[in-house]
Amino acid sequence: SCCSGARGVVASSSLSSSSGLASLSSVYEAQQFDRQMLDELFEVAQVMENVQPNTELSTCLQGKVMATLFYEPSTRTRLSFESAMSKLGGAVVSTENAREFSSAAKGETLEDSIRTVSGYADVIVLRHFVEGSARRAALVNAAPVLNAGDGPGQHPTQALLDVYTIGKERRQHGLGIDGATVALVGDLANGRTARSLATMLARNYENMHLIFVAPDVVRMGDDIKAYVDEQPGCTWEESTDLNEVASRCDVLYMTRVQKERFESPSDYELAKGKYIVDASIMDLLPSHAVVMHPLPRLDEIAAAVDDDPRCAYFRQAKNGLHIRMALLKVLLLQ
Amino acid sequence: SCCSGARGVVASSSLSSSSGLASLSSVYEAQQFDRQMLDELFEVAQVMENVQPNTELSTCLQGKVMATLFYEPSTRTRLSFESAMSKLGGAVVSTENAREFSSAAKGETLEDSIRTVSGYADVIVLRHFVEGSARRAALVNAAPVLNAGDGPGQHPTQALLDVYTIGKERRQHGLGIDGATVALVGDLANGRTARSLATMLARNYENMHLIFVAPDVVRMGDDIKAYVDEQPGCTWEESTDLNEVASRCDVLYMTRVQKERFESPSDYELAKGKYIVDASIMDLLPSHAVVMHPLPRLDEIAAAVDDDPRCAYFRQAKNGLHIRMALLKVLLLQ
Amino acid sequence: SCCSGARGVVASSSLSSSSGLASLSSVYEAQQFDRQMLDELFEVAQVMENVQPNTELSTCLQGKVMATLFYEPSTRTRLSFESAMSKLGGAVVSTENAREFSSAAKGETLEDSIRTVSGYADVIVLRHFVEGSARRAALVNAAPVLNAGDGPGQHPTQALLDVYTIGKERRQHGLGIDGATVALVGDLANGRTARSLATMLARNYENMHLIFVAPDVVRMGDDIKAYVDEQPGCTWEESTDLNEVASRCDVLYMTRVQKERFESPSDYELAKGKYIVDASIMDLLPSHAVVMHPLPRLDEIAAAVDDDPRCAYFRQAKNGLHIRMALLKVLLLQ
Repeated sequence: SCCSGARGVVASSSLSSSSGLASLSSVYEAQQFDRQMLDELFEVAQVMENVQPNTELSTCLQGKVMATLFYEPSTRTRLSFESAMSKLGGAVVSTENAREFSSAAKGETLEDSIRTVSGYADVIVLRHFVEGSARRAALVNAAPVLNAGDGPGQHPTQALLDVYTIGKERRQHGLGIDGATVALVGDLANGRTARSLATMLARNYENMHLIFVAPDVVRMGDDIKAYVDEQPGCTWEESTDLNEVASRCDVLYMTRVQKERFESPSDYELAKGKYIVDASIMDLLPSHAVVMHPLPRLDEIAAAVDDDPRCAYFRQAKNGLHIRMALLKVLLLQ
Repeated sequence: SCCSGARGVVASSSLSSSSGLASLSSVYEAQQFDRQMLDELFEVAQVMENVQPNTELSTCLQGKVMATLFYEPSTRTRLSFESAMSKLGGAVVSTENAREFSSAAKGETLEDSIRTVSGYADVIVLRHFVEGSARRAALVNAAPVLNAGDGPGQHPTQALLDVYTIGKERRQHGLGIDGATVALVGDLANGRTARSLATMLARNYENMHLIFVAPDVVRMGDDIKAYVDEQPGCTWEESTDLNEVASRCDVLYMTRVQKERFESPSDYELAKGKYIVDASIMDLLPSHAVVMHPLPRLDEIAAAVDDDPRCAYFRQAKNGLHIRMALLKVLLLQ
Repeated sequence: SCCSGARGVVASSSLSSSSGLASLSSVYEAQQFDRQMLDELFEVAQVMENVQPNTELSTCLQGKVMATLFYEPSTRTRLSFESAMSKLGGAVVSTENAREFSSAAKGETLEDSIRTVSGYADVIVLRHFVEGSARRAALVNAAPVLNAGDGPGQHPTQALLDVYTIGKERRQHGLGIDGATVALVGDLANGRTARSLATMLARNYENMHLIFVAPDVVRMGDDIKAYVDEQPGCTWEESTDLNEVASRCDVLYMTRVQKERFESPSDYELAKGKYIVDASIMDLLPSHAVVMHPLPRLDEIAAAVDDDPRCAYFRQAKNGLHIRMALLKVLLLQ
């Protein structure tokens, strides 16, 4: 599953386009986005931050219908997409029960389901448990498809909102994304978000430096390291201790370390303490640092530091709304 | 259950009206619709095919609320109704968990539930596991009720969209519904859609010829045959082999043959092959033929023939949206 | 749990305000509302009864998003809130599966969940199984929170709609809420709605007389009686027999008597008969009486009396829509 994940994140796509955002017809993987498309998308997202009720923009998707077709629940992601559609005046039809969709027949193909829903809906947000499903759905060439996670595969809007957040937070300090040192912390072997973010940054930005901070048992995969090595604008290093690298981090991207990955509970306890953001880590971080987390968090970030202006994770979640609004507008009105 | 199904489809209704679509206050059974009402409804549905965003029509149900009250899940039907409401600017409140609605009391009557929801909603789409529920709900005389399937009973919007599809497809060849030879194929003993379609065609159209194509174990019920015999404008014949009749079919309405109806697996395998639409069947069909299926399909239609312009099943699904838009407009704005 | 319920209903709140409805930022408990706020709220609710489609009022929440975050299903309450938002042009994102919201992490705090959803939504309707949850959510100070029931704690919009209903029904007879004799009937020891209503009436209205009608095993709690004793404008008495008091009731608020509270089935059968509203009870009630029930009902009110104009329970359910519309408008547009 590590290898299949690797394919999912790193492989280039025969459907990929590099002729700008206007060419986008579905969003199924992060690799569809080159630097130009990211720049364009983030400009649209910035406009989305100031949509006022009862304006042309807040009603621009009136009469359009988005179907959220979730083969497994992911309430947080679903609500974010649905709110995005609503904020632009569009309507939503929704199911977290999409397996039932084909259960009567005990075996309708995904392609048939997508074709049928395309009869009701102008855009489909798909969450599926099988890697590659979103791409298959996009290839049907019916309604545009937005991948909201396909098993161990991709969750491209998460990577987009992560990069958007880095850009937005650093702009407040007069900085760009290029040139940043980004530490990715936690279970890097299994964490889909950290792997996708590393790939998107390495591929599209210049003078990047990535620090992979993880316990030995869940180090960043060799596929990602090899991919970064191929990118001229990106270097990487590895560490097992957050304290050691904190003072050099422009961006600290936290994820969870999962107990079940460790052979003994004592090993876990030992490791865990090295990956917790608390007041002492905040003291080590530069004043312009950005602390991020895909959420939900457990104790890997102490609630006591939430009010530190460098802690961006709740703003990051909200940025997801604006990224999704931007994608919906681009897909439905271009 | 065959007999009760028969009652559901064939019996005339004391609530039935023949003074046109304007008299419609709820839709609980296919027999409510006479030829005049069908013609009027299909005219409205045709207008619905071209609703543009941000127009008077696409906002005509603004401020109206539709409740989808589903006592059992039927995601496909629910999404179609909800999209229909949305496309006209109406709002939707929805539950696939309607059994919970009365569970606190472990026994609220359906009538009480309908009266309560009528306090919140301007129209109720009801899916229930007990035959006759939609009619009971309509008799409460609160909000208008649309039957989205009541157990072995009726699913009238399916019959309406099927007849609408036949009309629309045949119009492209300069033909009407009257005079068509329609083959109904599959498990006709248990298939609610085939039984309803046969009844609606026999009752309302002229010079119709129905061909019931089914394995011996699941032949069309005698109740439907007797009903057709009573209609002056309709004849029928029976066959066990699709190959035999394909060249004479103006409309081929496919449904599934279910394995569990057969005593031995080999009997099933033998039968199944006779009810599959593939390239060789397509070769036998007239050039103006219409191939339909209520969906989801399994292997009774080969995906390889999907691109044949005579294959109308995905258009048929989309027609359901327009029929439901038309019904909602009629019920809420007349 | 009786005691904790008592705290929930009676305790005054440090967050409470008495500077009018404009000061309201969240609704988590009934005690937030003093007489002035109730009067103001009911005036807004009355306006909500006549919202016409495609008007300024019916679109006043355009571009706003309400999230219904339900940690346990309560379909009736959810649909009422969602319809309220829709009737004012707002949009809804919804989950009855909110436990899943934090399940990936197996332990996100409620505060984090509220902060995250506040990134997507302009107002949150919270249903939770733990008492005090709504207050905790309100204290996050992110999006406004509306309590839709927190376990054995509060369900303040039910109390509000109950008092609103009494006022509205009595106005038709030229009467106010002040001075009314209100009989609360059923399982008063465990019934959250009866306890809340008693408290809200005693606290805010004058010359009230409450009659607690219950079997001995489920009498009204001493905490509520003590609370009423402290209010200058309210007296109470107790009875075990509805027949005895019916002729003196201006308002009859029925709730269920639950079989499982009785030691022997025969005791239950004996008790039950004394708490059923049927034609003979209706004969005893004054001509201006108001019969209410929070619904769903079982047999504690005979369906045969539904058409009596004094039976207000279905109007009461509908009033919940107008109260919720009023609260949403106040919270989102003030």
